Amino acid sequence: MPQRPPLTPLVESLPETVPFVGPETQERLRGRPFRARLGANENGFGPSPGVVEAMRAAAPEMWKYGDPESHDLRQALAARLGVASSNIVVGEGIDGLLGLVVRQYAGPGTPVVTSLGAYPTFNYHVAGFGARLVTVPYEGDRESLEGLAEAARRERARLVYLSNPDNPMGTWWSGEEIARFIDALPETTMLVLDEAYCETAPAGALPPLEPERPNVLRMRTFSKVYGLAGLRCGYCIGPAEAIRAFDKVRNHFGMTRMTQAAALAALEDEAHLRKVVELVDACRRRLAAIAERHGLAALPSATNFVTIDCGRDGAFALRVLKALDARDVFVRKPMAPRLDRCIRVSVGPQDEVDVFESALAPALEEAGAA
Amino acid sequence: MPQRPPLTPLVESLPETVPFVGPETQERLRGRPFRARLGANENGFGPSPGVVEAMRAAAPEMWKYGDPESHDLRQALAARLGVASSNIVVGEGIDGLLGLVVRQYAGPGTPVVTSLGAYPTFNYHVAGFGARLVTVPYEGDRESLEGLAEAARRERARLVYLSNPDNPMGTWWSGEEIARFIDALPETTMLVLDEAYCETAPAGALPPLEPERPNVLRMRTFSKVYGLAGLRCGYCIGPAEAIRAFDKVRNHFGMTRMTQAAALAALEDEAHLRKVVELVDACRRRLAAIAERHGLAALPSATNFVTIDCGRDGAFALRVLKALDARDVFVRKPMAPRLDRCIRVSVGPQDEVDVFESALAPALEEAGAA
Repeated sequence: MPQRPPLTPLVESLPETVPFVGPETQERLRGRPFRARLGANENGFGPSPGVVEAMRAAAPEMWKYGDPESHDLRQALAARLGVASSNIVVGEGIDGLLGLVVRQYAGPGTPVVTSLGAYPTFNYHVAGFGARLVTVPYEGDRESLEGLAEAARRERARLVYLSNPDNPMGTWWSGEEIARFIDALPETTMLVLDEAYCETAPAGALPPLEPERPNVLRMRTFSKVYGLAGLRCGYCIGPAEAIRAFDKVRNHFGMTRMTQAAALAALEDEAHLRKVVELVDACRRRLAAIAERHGLAALPSATNFVTIDCGRDGAFALRVLKALDARDVFVRKPMAPRLDRCIRVSVGPQDEVDVFESALAPALEEAGAA
Repeated sequence: MPQRPPLTPLVESLPETVPFVGPETQERLRGRPFRARLGANENGFGPSPGVVEAMRAAAPEMWKYGDPESHDLRQALAARLGVASSNIVVGEGIDGLLGLVVRQYAGPGTPVVTSLGAYPTFNYHVAGFGARLVTVPYEGDRESLEGLAEAARRERARLVYLSNPDNPMGTWWSGEEIARFIDALPETTMLVLDEAYCETAPAGALPPLEPERPNVLRMRTFSKVYGLAGLRCGYCIGPAEAIRAFDKVRNHFGMTRMTQAAALAALEDEAHLRKVVELVDACRRRLAAIAERHGLAALPSATNFVTIDCGRDGAFALRVLKALDARDVFVRKPMAPRLDRCIRVSVGPQDEVDVFESALAPALEEAGAA
């Protein structure tokens, strides 16, 4: 029997699972499209008309590689945030940046702390570099700041991951509480603070920007309120020394030229940002009202989705999810113990939320009858 | 003094160098734009009008994440190539795929073979995962098939990299010679066969597609004749088992939705592909004629660039490059011993080649006088 080139022992040991099954994959398996795409925390209100125009104008230029430094975009972000461009690195979505961070700080056996039920893609990268994941249960429906800090100290963790506002629960801590959490971490633990949903958070939910803080990397994205998930643009704000280290490992020409053009145009359209934030807020309230009319409790949300407590156990919530799927509604749900009693519904245009609303009562009935 | 979170010893040891300085970076340093962008082996003839239209049509949909399986594009590629879609993985340019391949097969100290002066980005990834790079000198102006195979056997290499047609020299081996080379490799050595320039190669320069060959991964791209370098779309053809392994480590949602739409449209426009191949060939002949009129020898080219032997040593060729830069002409050059006597000029639209042509005589004069 012929031999094959062997994978490294680490890669050989990894499962072929994926962090998320995409809605297109589900549609292919289902054999028909969803009528409501409310599961991936995308922004169905879309990018601004000006951004669409910028993409159209940039299209003929796609024969050129993108600027590997994303210089103009980083300059614009720096000006907006009041930090230096040396405090910013741009990458292929927060997902891509998370992979680079894990690679830089963690190797086989390195302790890494996260919450049980937090972002699976972070865990995917931790496994991918052979690091040792230590999980901390949520405290109620929020990530446990005390528990995470305690675990980071106990384990001498190299990395600790926290999303604020939180995915998948939509909850948040105040900026003051996050600042105290940062102070409670060992100096040698790098905090990966995922702020993908920062734009839809209430005032006071974010700690001040202190980019030269040596052990904090803050992740943000154009995938949510800016409506550009399909273009893969995340950025990381951190100390210049740590930001420079990304240059040792990143795919330098990985950012598309289109993405840079679109993100730059999106940053310039503050009116659209404000409009989307209002639309998100209105839709969150509508989703909460729909939940309540059906006897369910919507968790308070600082994000572009609403997590709905289905009031029973994980098996019931999973049946609700499947019954919604049968009615062509794409939503997702947390899978960790206790959090799994919920489903997670992204905001979206009125007609898609209408589909969800009309599907919910029969879905609940079917789930209860099963 | 406060401590910082430490990088892994491997990442700490890596230099902050980058494989290529982008032309935009050079323009910022120069303080003015190039008049001829002929250094990055891009395709200045651009994507087809139909592809531009497909990008424009897709723009409003960019709020959706791209399909993480790139299903439609992989299906179309499979149909075009006569292989199964399970033999294809799509990634963020060949650059991104090379990083994933190195990560899968090589770790600290793993022997990896390439040619001295071949693609720097491959070497960047080899260093990035701590593997041990073994280099083989070119044989004349072609990569040495015998030398590479011998080194792979001697070193028990896990990976061997070969570009055919070759970058940076533009030369090529016949498909039969490549097939014999494959047969000469150990079964446990994975060949990374970079065919970025396959579409502009003469008939017979490619070995037959045998996707289930266990130790060959063939890399191709939409960055060259398809004119979509700015959208980052490479693909790898290989045995289904090896292709599945990419799913263990890749950034599943890394491909932009725009890229998938544009690449799919590009595949469908065969007339444009044929037209570009003709334009490339005509421009190669023009560049060769320009070289000859200036007393220089153009190497035969199977790529979208022409490597020009400046007839003296590397220092002279570097002076030519700098003198061209001073005249707003962006070209690049090989840096390895002996290859470094050349400059490398990408094909491009007539007006940009005009700029190169008019700059060459004074540049040569300045370089000779220095």
